[in-house]
Amino acid sequence: MLERPELSLFEYQFVANMLSFGIAAMFAGAIFFLFARNLVAPKYRLSMLITAIVPAIAFYHYYRIYESWNTAYTFNPASGTYTGSGAVFNDAYRYMDWLLTVPLLTTELVLSLGLAAAIARSLSIKLAVAAALMIVLGYPGEIADALGIKMLFWSLSMIPFLYILYILFTEFTKYIQEQPASVQPAIKLARTTLLITWFFYPIAFLFPIIGLSSAQGEVFLQVGYSVADVLAKVGFGVVVYYICHSKSVADGWSPDGLATAVPKVA
Amino acid sequence: MLERPELSLFEYQFVANMLSFGIAAMFAGAIFFLFARNLVAPKYRLSMLITAIVPAIAFYHYYRIYESWNTAYTFNPASGTYTGSGAVFNDAYRYMDWLLTVPLLTTELVLSLGLAAAIARSLSIKLAVAAALMIVLGYPGEIADALGIKMLFWSLSMIPFLYILYILFTEFTKYIQEQPASVQPAIKLARTTLLITWFFYPIAFLFPIIGLSSAQGEVFLQVGYSVADVLAKVGFGVVVYYICHSKSVADGWSPDGLATAVPKVA
Repeated sequence: MLERPELSLFEYQFVANMLSFGIAAMFAGAIFFLFARNLVAPKYRLSMLITAIVPAIAFYHYYRIYESWNTAYTFNPASGTYTGSGAVFNDAYRYMDWLLTVPLLTTELVLSLGLAAAIARSLSIKLAVAAALMIVLGYPGEIADALGIKMLFWSLSMIPFLYILYILFTEFTKYIQEQPASVQPAIKLARTTLLITWFFYPIAFLFPIIGLSSAQGEVFLQVGYSVADVLAKVGFGVVVYYICHSKSVADGWSPDGLATAVPKVA
Repeated sequence: MLERPELSLFEYQFVANMLSFGIAAMFAGAIFFLFARNLVAPKYRLSMLITAIVPAIAFYHYYRIYESWNTAYTFNPASGTYTGSGAVFNDAYRYMDWLLTVPLLTTELVLSLGLAAAIARSLSIKLAVAAALMIVLGYPGEIADALGIKMLFWSLSMIPFLYILYILFTEFTKYIQEQPASVQPAIKLARTTLLITWFFYPIAFLFPIIGLSSAQGEVFLQVGYSVADVLAKVGFGVVVYYICHSKSVADGWSPDGLATAVPKVA
């Protein structure tokens, strides 16, 4: 963590630009979802509000990571490269972010389905607790130096991750099948987005272990995290918005206050 | 207070990360409760507004404490440790925060019950005055060096705390029993959350007295305060939102503007 690899101008700027891209994308997502909540039926606005809170939290953390990246390096005009300034690059902001946002991501998905209150509550809590546990167990592995400890916590962290996938592809499938046919593809897309984007993290965790700790490894990791985070939060959020909107239409709700069909009593 | 214990990289970063976690969690809570107020009946929106103001105030104070923590320490690249920079770490921001937020926490709870105006007013004032008194009496003990003065103000501060608990488990119990059965468990959960999270503070106050003033003590104290604050403000707020929402449903209110049952006149 302390010794920073020497980075070329391109490498340093690539990471700085992607972190800045993260700030901008999260900011945009937070505002979009916050105001788009009025475009869906009231029943789905709690889901939309949580969908907005997630990138709002990430906006803050990307700002911190960007600042930390800037202070951790010094530009050397003579060589045209960046070397460590002596300040610590604090990448652990990511874990603080995930601890808050990952349980919220599973919750926004569950709430977008408009299930009966008791089912939604039990399913939300189950997934959110597993998500928080996954992050808490990953953190000691991230900061540990010893390979054995790293692999131990990586394995422990994979258990709640696999549990989440198990729920999403068993119990959750049952709830998808109860949804109107017009909404089902969007829900499956949300599940696939979650599956694909979340798999980046345990793989990225292994990068330093398989020897990818050079300048290229650092750049790949930071750029990869930024892309995965934007897709997992804003991209996923767009799909959740689409579910909430489709469900509103299927329920016969219209933003004009005019029901387009007979409303279904929840 | 002035001489900072030497901290390892891990210890320093753990506190910095938890303070940053506090900033992010309070920020998220403030936004969430502010916009979630429209998801409950108008009668409960004053409670929701106060529930939002509390983490908004704490967001500001956590930002100050984080900045103060950063300036109070200097990183020594040679040893890889953090030592005092000579700047003062101002932990008293916490008392400024509590002076504002703790009376608001008791108020948001009372208002979420939708009691008759005169009862709500008298109960709110009683609890808020006791809460403010508890913080005002704790502060001289916190800044005093002499053990006798510390213990004197700790004991004085415990009197309004025990008075609050007394009210919550006598008079308040009566009002819980008058609530719809569907809402009672949430109100009891709010009371239990308050009881458990608030007990951390008088215990933490005693840490330096029982000799826990080393680096580990400092880390434990700052991390403990951050966790207790997030649970007491955002966690408690989620329960208050749940009470307001359950009460709205029990009153027959729906965010569609369509009553799902005959509204009960309060």
